[in-house]
Amino acid sequence: MAKMSSPTETERCIESLIAVFQRYAGRDGNRSSLSKTEFLTFMNTELAAFTKNQKDPGVLDRMMKKLDTNRDGQLDFQEFLNLIGGLAVACHDSFTRTQK
Amino acid sequence: MAKMSSPTETERCIESLIAVFQRYAGRDGNRSSLSKTEFLTFMNTELAAFTKNQKDPGVLDRMMKKLDTNRDGQLDFQEFLNLIGGLAVACHDSFTRTQK
Repeated sequence: MAKMSSPTETERCIESLIAVFQRYAGRDGNRSSLSKTEFLTFMNTELAAFTKNQKDPGVLDRMMKKLDTNRDGQLDFQEFLNLIGGLAVACHDSFTRTQK
Repeated sequence: MAKMSSPTETERCIESLIAVFQRYAGRDGNRSSLSKTEFLTFMNTELAAFTKNQKDPGVLDRMMKKLDTNRDGQLDFQEFLNLIGGLAVACHDSFTRTQK
C-alpha cells in the first residue's frame, strides 16, 4: 500500500492484522495459511493473556477445529479474521455490559 | 480489559477496533450501532484513501446495504467487523499477488 499521509487508526489496524498473520503463517511450509503449530504459536504469543487463563488443555484444539471452516487442517486469512472478530465481539460485549 | 503488561500487536488491534467503532457509533442515538450517517462519517474519515478513489457515488450506499445483514438500517459491531475483514482480505490478496 502506498503511503500518501499518516494512516488512520483503522488503516493501521488492517495493516497490523495482515502483518501479524503473515509473520506467523510464514514460519513453516505454506505461507498463506496457519498450520496447527503456527496457530498455537500465535495464540501463545499474541494472545497469551487469553490462553494462560484457559484451564482446559483442549480449548485451543477445539478453537482450531471450529475456525477451520473448510476443514483443510489450516487457517487461511479469512478464517484467522473470524478468530479476531470473535474475540473482538466477546471483548466488546463484556465492555458494553460493564458500562450499563 | 485489565492491563497486566504491554499489549501485543493483536491485542492493540482488537482494542482499536472496539474504540473506533464506539467513537463513531456514539455520535448520535443508539451507541451500539452505526447509523447510515455514522457509517458515512466513519468511511470518509477513517477510510478516506478508499472512498476518495470511488468515482461512483452509490458505492457507499451499496456497501451499507450489503453489510447490514439483519436489515435494520444500522451496522452493529459484528457487521462492522465484516467490513474491516472484507477490506483486510482485499488488501491481503492484493499484497500477496504482488509478492508472487
